[in-house]
Amino acid sequence: MSRRLRMGLIGGGPGSFIGPVHRIAAELDREIELVAGAFSSSADKSRAAGESYRIDPARAYPDIATMLAAETAREDGIDFVAVTTPNHMHLPAARAALEAGIAVICDKPATATLAQAHELAAVVAAADKPFALTYTYSGYPLVREARHLVAQGALGKVRKIVVEYPQGWLAGEAAGKQAEWRVDPARSGLGGCIGDIGVHAFHLAEFISGLRVVQILADLGTVVPGRQVDDDCQMFLRFDNGARGALLASQISVGERNGLAIRIYGEKAGLRWKQEEPNQLWLFHDSGRSELIQAGDAGLGPDAVAASRTPGGHPEGYLEAFANLYRDFAKLLRGEPGSLVPGIEEGLRGMALIETAVHASAAGAGWTDLTV
Amino acid sequence: MSRRLRMGLIGGGPGSFIGPVHRIAAELDREIELVAGAFSSSADKSRAAGESYRIDPARAYPDIATMLAAETAREDGIDFVAVTTPNHMHLPAARAALEAGIAVICDKPATATLAQAHELAAVVAAADKPFALTYTYSGYPLVREARHLVAQGALGKVRKIVVEYPQGWLAGEAAGKQAEWRVDPARSGLGGCIGDIGVHAFHLAEFISGLRVVQILADLGTVVPGRQVDDDCQMFLRFDNGARGALLASQISVGERNGLAIRIYGEKAGLRWKQEEPNQLWLFHDSGRSELIQAGDAGLGPDAVAASRTPGGHPEGYLEAFANLYRDFAKLLRGEPGSLVPGIEEGLRGMALIETAVHASAAGAGWTDLTV
Amino acid sequence: MSRRLRMGLIGGGPGSFIGPVHRIAAELDREIELVAGAFSSSADKSRAAGESYRIDPARAYPDIATMLAAETAREDGIDFVAVTTPNHMHLPAARAALEAGIAVICDKPATATLAQAHELAAVVAAADKPFALTYTYSGYPLVREARHLVAQGALGKVRKIVVEYPQGWLAGEAAGKQAEWRVDPARSGLGGCIGDIGVHAFHLAEFISGLRVVQILADLGTVVPGRQVDDDCQMFLRFDNGARGALLASQISVGERNGLAIRIYGEKAGLRWKQEEPNQLWLFHDSGRSELIQAGDAGLGPDAVAASRTPGGHPEGYLEAFANLYRDFAKLLRGEPGSLVPGIEEGLRGMALIETAVHASAAGAGWTDLTV
Amino acid sequence: MSRRLRMGLIGGGPGSFIGPVHRIAAELDREIELVAGAFSSSADKSRAAGESYRIDPARAYPDIATMLAAETAREDGIDFVAVTTPNHMHLPAARAALEAGIAVICDKPATATLAQAHELAAVVAAADKPFALTYTYSGYPLVREARHLVAQGALGKVRKIVVEYPQGWLAGEAAGKQAEWRVDPARSGLGGCIGDIGVHAFHLAEFISGLRVVQILADLGTVVPGRQVDDDCQMFLRFDNGARGALLASQISVGERNGLAIRIYGEKAGLRWKQEEPNQLWLFHDSGRSELIQAGDAGLGPDAVAASRTPGGHPEGYLEAFANLYRDFAKLLRGEPGSLVPGIEEGLRGMALIETAVHASAAGAGWTDLTV
Repeated sequence: MSRRLRMGLIGGGPGSFIGPVHRIAAELDREIELVAGAFSSSADKSRAAGESYRIDPARAYPDIATMLAAETAREDGIDFVAVTTPNHMHLPAARAALEAGIAVICDKPATATLAQAHELAAVVAAADKPFALTYTYSGYPLVREARHLVAQGALGKVRKIVVEYPQGWLAGEAAGKQAEWRVDPARSGLGGCIGDIGVHAFHLAEFISGLRVVQILADLGTVVPGRQVDDDCQMFLRFDNGARGALLASQISVGERNGLAIRIYGEKAGLRWKQEEPNQLWLFHDSGRSELIQAGDAGLGPDAVAASRTPGGHPEGYLEAFANLYRDFAKLLRGEPGSLVPGIEEGLRGMALIETAVHASAAGAGWTDLTV
Repeated sequence: MSRRLRMGLIGGGPGSFIGPVHRIAAELDREIELVAGAFSSSADKSRAAGESYRIDPARAYPDIATMLAAETAREDGIDFVAVTTPNHMHLPAARAALEAGIAVICDKPATATLAQAHELAAVVAAADKPFALTYTYSGYPLVREARHLVAQGALGKVRKIVVEYPQGWLAGEAAGKQAEWRVDPARSGLGGCIGDIGVHAFHLAEFISGLRVVQILADLGTVVPGRQVDDDCQMFLRFDNGARGALLASQISVGERNGLAIRIYGEKAGLRWKQEEPNQLWLFHDSGRSELIQAGDAGLGPDAVAASRTPGGHPEGYLEAFANLYRDFAKLLRGEPGSLVPGIEEGLRGMALIETAVHASAAGAGWTDLTV
Repeated sequence: MSRRLRMGLIGGGPGSFIGPVHRIAAELDREIELVAGAFSSSADKSRAAGESYRIDPARAYPDIATMLAAETAREDGIDFVAVTTPNHMHLPAARAALEAGIAVICDKPATATLAQAHELAAVVAAADKPFALTYTYSGYPLVREARHLVAQGALGKVRKIVVEYPQGWLAGEAAGKQAEWRVDPARSGLGGCIGDIGVHAFHLAEFISGLRVVQILADLGTVVPGRQVDDDCQMFLRFDNGARGALLASQISVGERNGLAIRIYGEKAGLRWKQEEPNQLWLFHDSGRSELIQAGDAGLGPDAVAASRTPGGHPEGYLEAFANLYRDFAKLLRGEPGSLVPGIEEGLRGMALIETAVHASAAGAGWTDLTV
Repeated sequence: MSRRLRMGLIGGGPGSFIGPVHRIAAELDREIELVAGAFSSSADKSRAAGESYRIDPARAYPDIATMLAAETAREDGIDFVAVTTPNHMHLPAARAALEAGIAVICDKPATATLAQAHELAAVVAAADKPFALTYTYSGYPLVREARHLVAQGALGKVRKIVVEYPQGWLAGEAAGKQAEWRVDPARSGLGGCIGDIGVHAFHLAEFISGLRVVQILADLGTVVPGRQVDDDCQMFLRFDNGARGALLASQISVGERNGLAIRIYGEKAGLRWKQEEPNQLWLFHDSGRSELIQAGDAGLGPDAVAASRTPGGHPEGYLEAFANLYRDFAKLLRGEPGSLVPGIEEGLRGMALIETAVHASAAGAGWTDLTV
């Protein structure tokens, strides 16, 4: 199948941030083409969005069901949908698509609740089309290089992981379309900060280290008065190899933009990566030698090489990382090997983290098992 | 005209770096669609490239003339060509397209020689379609913010500009497709380093400052034995307001990737920008206050805002900067205002710089007027 | 009293790190002069050390008691002692000096146990000479500026504090004089990492914020097999104004040198300081403006100005910060106002932190009050 | 001779910046003790300064001649003088001391004119006591490591050197004691910026590279209206091995503090060092590997090790670098090997640079030989 894959976008209407990001990411490598969408729960807004994306007006649908019905009936119908709505819509949208025989790529977290995630997992298991989840940051070339280094044993046994995700944009009143649904449990689910960004940090730690968190001790807080979800969370972690860890995520850390960062310390070496400087990866050897690995360097592993489009010194960023997930997803759809895009398993783990943390913190529980 | 503009790519065949970059940049905002190409001077390679771009095989042409003839005959023919060949092909390719009534966007420098640039200028003047030139780095949001700050008077009168462009990739033997033509005067023109990257630095200085270089004192050198073009160049500059300057460009600076950087000092403030950290712009006030301006910050000027696709902390890079030039070019084609993409005037200035520098340095001349 | 104050050094013999640091710091401003010492528990080594410091051989004493007896008998005897031994010697040394009417400046932590700290507090209360404690990092100019900014209300109400102190030097076997006593509970006390560097982080957080930690939730671990004290510790914090916090300290974080760093987020602004770049202080305003405050800048508060010896751009470091504590101590001795050097109260708080953390972590306790 | 060496300070009176720096640097290692001074050309000010330094009031002299007469008559008289006056006083002060049999350490540049430097060289040649010159920045541990790496061949043949020294403090009117004499040719000599900081950059390039500049092409400018000396200078350089270079120094670069920085590119590797981050040295290998060398790292060469007082991660700065020059000077006085402190030869080269540059630039000369 050498033709471009056909994408239907769910969400991504006027004012959306992540919908257009999915569109750019999907099309960046010319593997995929946006051809249809149910961009909004308002038919008018969906139509307007269709125009702004410059797609065939007939394929800007008023709702998901209509899109699925129409597209499955077309010879040149969509190959997959991208679900980019608020969290509470993920399950119904993904279920409808998969049950219609349409593959799904879905924004994180998997769903609004763990129960929904289990439901979704059953749907995915029964479906014959792929399901993928966009933990964006696992698409960065040097995140993949970090994973490669750990897997190769460059660090020796991993002993300690510190992963942080400070933001400041919800330090005041949550205003605007992006903020409002995130602090509304009806749309975001139980978790606020933990669900919006904590799961990214959690996934990054597991993705790079190849380890699994088995216990957490969570301290979630709501700093802004009147807010109904957590906006600052900190957690101690234990990994399945005994490694210790900490996860700090916050949306009230004034002055922080999108400060996802990870440090992993092993017996022989340590590494450090920071999302805002994504083309740099530090490797610290126990000899004392400090090495700066840069995107495009000679000697990078195959995953990092495959994930880069430009030579060293030509910065790639967030959109290109996102595009790498879509490139992986296209491999899944084409039946090609080598995909690193997360799926429902990672989705379940993320939802388990959110609910375990929210409940354990509220109960003042100590160390709590993280099970899926 | 709300449809996507149709692009024909000239160059961009197997092994090309800048061709695929033009394609990604052009399509990023869904304003433009690649539909045709004369990707290589080899018909076979052009066909293979067409497949890799997933375009209609019938529109992967064996040469430019065939493409122009076929496409101008189609109802849905191309709106423009992007010229991404080595420099010596720029003039014939651009001339053919413009004379066929097809708009042109061309990689820098404008041509291989100043004489060719003047020829091209005449063609452009006679054409009724736009011509644009991709001085990539002027597409970065914070470069445009820097320009805005200078224009607003934030620096006061500009007194000193230091612009540098160190690279290290030609420190050894020039091997590989990308390197070979750049050190071959038959394909690159008289200038080596000065033509490949020096003109970028030069354009950046003029673009941000709003000033024009009126005199140069050039010291070009060839460090790698046997090389036929310069690979290290340094220049003193005088600007039309009397400001002093220096331009340092090098391709033998081992360890440097793509280190374009500029510092501008005025009576009241100074600024600093570095291509490898493109989302940061430093502003130093004479009070001693140091301000770090970041992409996505509140309070940025309209050009920087328009040139960003993601919120603060979500890094955009080289491809997005390039895409901003294509967005500007699309404005030209649609007759919309607000384009900042360079054109033939900037092309002429760049070629004048190259030839003036090469000749003046070879002659051991002192201060030399830069005239176009 | 305009003469230089006379210092007797306890500890600081061959192989000592912190003894010579105290000597340099004390003498840097010519307020103080080293004239005597009981440099080692070996009389021979003490004599050798005396020679290396170039002091009068007669004043290189074999033990503390001899020094105190001899010096109190001299007209030009010492004004104070600096206690720079391993922790278990702090109490006896300080007690002996204070009871002999000699002022004391002591390295941190105050003692080896909390009980000893209470004993020492009683001695200090009964003494008529000052006692000071060298929490080194509170001597940095920009740490003092940070404290000044918080006190002035530049951050608004403080909401969140993250303080970290990663080191890597004990990631392997603890070898050498500096390492050995630190992992030996008989000499270091109950705490390993928490006592060696955790208390520095704790003091820094309280010093800058002006807040007091009232509860902790501690997770101390011993990563290197066979070690008898903690070498990696993490803690959640609650401050007396309700602010949330985290403290991470580690000595097994390969590749980290001396990475003490703090971030404080308030309602209106956030700040960041890092010991390894001590002359930079970041201030992030909720408007989105990012300000880099540098040592020597115009507009700094009086404490930062007083703590600097060179103009901006001339880096000062660890020794100068340490010297600022001695300058403060000299003020105490001369009866002058304006000292910021910590004393026994801060010593008690640090010891309470160590013991509370060690016991609570071992017991698997949850949130635990921190009381002195 | 195991006693502390005795220092007499010339200059360093009220308001002096560099005098107190010399004092701190000299005494830091307890090799040297300030005992006397002719601190000011005003007897009253000299006396007041003596009090502030807490020296014997009888040894705060009204002038140099009196000091030399009195001190040479004492058994415990000074071993050397440190000359820290404005430039025009260097020759008479140094001459008087050397002719009185007193060693001299002198601030840079050597003198106010090249002719004076030749005179001084003759005095030094005839004297039997050492003369040293404080090019401060050659005292930094990692500058010495850089020199060591080049000497060891880590870079291969050096091809290109870029050294810069931007400052901004003279961008406005020159106000205050420090500024005034520097822009007064009667006190500073012919050179303004070139003499004050350009020579530092020049010395650093020669010190690290082990090469000698043989030709320059200078472009000196005076940016601030009415100023009588240059305040912005740029120069192309040719070294004795054929390497190319550029030197940029400026005192009107608003926002720059003390930005001395150097990059050296060889056939095999490149290095980068920046004074404001003195404890970091970058080494870039032609393989693409980027190494960050930090002060205190295992594996440093002997000169860097000897020049450090604290372990890695405990920043040392400007004062400690300065102290390393004094430690070297003490070695000269004690007849010990291993000194790296510059002397009259480096002084002559610096003065030749200043005068050659000033004259060549004024004459609009092209490449000009630099001879001493």
